Amino acid sequence: MKKIINDVDKIIDEMIDGLVKANDDILERLEDSTVVARKGEAKKAKVGLISGGGSGHEPAHAGYVGEGMLDCAICGSIFTSPTPDQILKAIEKADSGKGVFMVIKNYQGDVMNFEIAQEMAEMQGIKVDSIIVRDDIAIENYEDRRGVAGTIFVHKVLGAMAEDGKSLEEIKAKAEEIVKNIKTIGLATKPCVNPNDGKESFSLGEDEIEMGIGIHGEEGIKKEKLQSANAMAKEMVDRLLAEITDTSTDFALMVNGMGQTTEMELYLINNFVSDYLKEKGINVKKYFVGNYMTSMDMAGFSLTLFNIDDEILSYLDRKVCVGRR
Amino acid sequence: MKKIINDVDKIIDEMIDGLVKANDDILERLEDSTVVARKGEAKKAKVGLISGGGSGHEPAHAGYVGEGMLDCAICGSIFTSPTPDQILKAIEKADSGKGVFMVIKNYQGDVMNFEIAQEMAEMQGIKVDSIIVRDDIAIENYEDRRGVAGTIFVHKVLGAMAEDGKSLEEIKAKAEEIVKNIKTIGLATKPCVNPNDGKESFSLGEDEIEMGIGIHGEEGIKKEKLQSANAMAKEMVDRLLAEITDTSTDFALMVNGMGQTTEMELYLINNFVSDYLKEKGINVKKYFVGNYMTSMDMAGFSLTLFNIDDEILSYLDRKVCVGRR
Repeated sequence: MKKIINDVDKIIDEMIDGLVKANDDILERLEDSTVVARKGEAKKAKVGLISGGGSGHEPAHAGYVGEGMLDCAICGSIFTSPTPDQILKAIEKADSGKGVFMVIKNYQGDVMNFEIAQEMAEMQGIKVDSIIVRDDIAIENYEDRRGVAGTIFVHKVLGAMAEDGKSLEEIKAKAEEIVKNIKTIGLATKPCVNPNDGKESFSLGEDEIEMGIGIHGEEGIKKEKLQSANAMAKEMVDRLLAEITDTSTDFALMVNGMGQTTEMELYLINNFVSDYLKEKGINVKKYFVGNYMTSMDMAGFSLTLFNIDDEILSYLDRKVCVGRR
Repeated sequence: MKKIINDVDKIIDEMIDGLVKANDDILERLEDSTVVARKGEAKKAKVGLISGGGSGHEPAHAGYVGEGMLDCAICGSIFTSPTPDQILKAIEKADSGKGVFMVIKNYQGDVMNFEIAQEMAEMQGIKVDSIIVRDDIAIENYEDRRGVAGTIFVHKVLGAMAEDGKSLEEIKAKAEEIVKNIKTIGLATKPCVNPNDGKESFSLGEDEIEMGIGIHGEEGIKKEKLQSANAMAKEMVDRLLAEITDTSTDFALMVNGMGQTTEMELYLINNFVSDYLKEKGINVKKYFVGNYMTSMDMAGFSLTLFNIDDEILSYLDRKVCVGRR
């Protein structure tokens, strides 16, 4: 393992502090916690929006804390859910009287710990609601689907709504509407290496890729030979389109890097995907190409399609001010 | 070599098209060229700001085209200077009557080709001036220093000035002032692989790093054992501080990823560097942590320190609207 770190046990602490120090005009770290929060008191009462999960997906989620997106992000250990007491600190901080909404990726530990924190907060009289994101179509059964890169779309839409003063009920209703319309699939050309054990998350031959990976280095649907970028992207778009019931709407597309794949490759992928979608009659109105939800140093990419309307487009277009520059 | 590409000879074309398709509201590709430009005619007469060089450093430079930064970027082949005729197209496009300013990284091919293009443009009556960026302190002699990550600071400061309507003379004077105050050093934990030959740019043992690398996979000052992030960053900061004559000003700091190094690692590096600079009495007012100037899929990072004043800080703080999101 060749990583630029100090002590494995201090990675998360040092990462959080480094992020906050780089953005000390807008971010703070809550005392005795792994919570990154918008600095200071809320300027106006609004629904608090929080998210979090295991670390290793940077810039998700702490890089999305700021005006127009999250109020707090809870950073767990690498690929490990944060604990309920940490999540509770985030809920308390994010509450300005209008309640707190939690965006949870669908992993057993996350779902359980966010729910426990919700119960604890409700006992204090804080209104809390949540959505579980299940965008990874590599898993067949919808209820079991993992939350992956599409989660960033949820942050962005709900973040803009919260900033606009929408109520907890309005945000919940929109969240339920949009999560059904967000579909993602990813592939890896190289596994990630978790610094906790220094091991590759799965093994791949020099000419092999893994289709349908998860963001914690979970193995996918199948191994296959490395093909051209276009051939691999075509298979992924076809898999996404097979899941989309209404192709008549407008769409947002995300081409997300898994960590060590270059922007050169991501743009080259987008070149094919955007043409191929047009050929298929899909109208993409908004593109996101970059590293949004990574899996440590995995190489590979994911594609996300999201049915949008003009209202959602306006939320996606909104400028935000977050730690990620 | 395991890269997500189609045909090696089409990488640059496909990358440019993919970038422009993702940003077709603000970017266009000039016909029969590798020039990415702000879309349409300039809304107001202003100095045109252009840059470019070999590809493989994405998001530099095409990802910085847009309001508040570059008017055009010329994309050469991988690690290869663009030709004078391509640069001329960019100059012609960027000229709205107030002249064009070129930001050139100090490589022989770039300097020569940008100068030839300048002469060709001047023969057409276009006013052109330029600055050569030499921020890489790994090279001892100032005149021979390479332009690396600090070039992005030059784009940002001069881009804001051009947007503000400053003249070619004012921009030239500021450029000459700031380039002397931008110092960078980088290290690699893994070399990059150029898809043109599929070979690693240098060889490193499993426990070795290369200190003082260039952004084209040039070997550095020395190989040494991989140390802790803090120890390596300390050596780099010490090398930078030895080059800085006035430490009493404010500073901007860039922690730049070389390609496959994770944001987790970059923030952890910033955690140490920001503390260590404070301890040394250096007042950092503005931080940039992320992938700004990469070297394909190299692993590693560079640190840049830039003496700033309130005027420059205001330019660095300015919001821009570029293809990179």
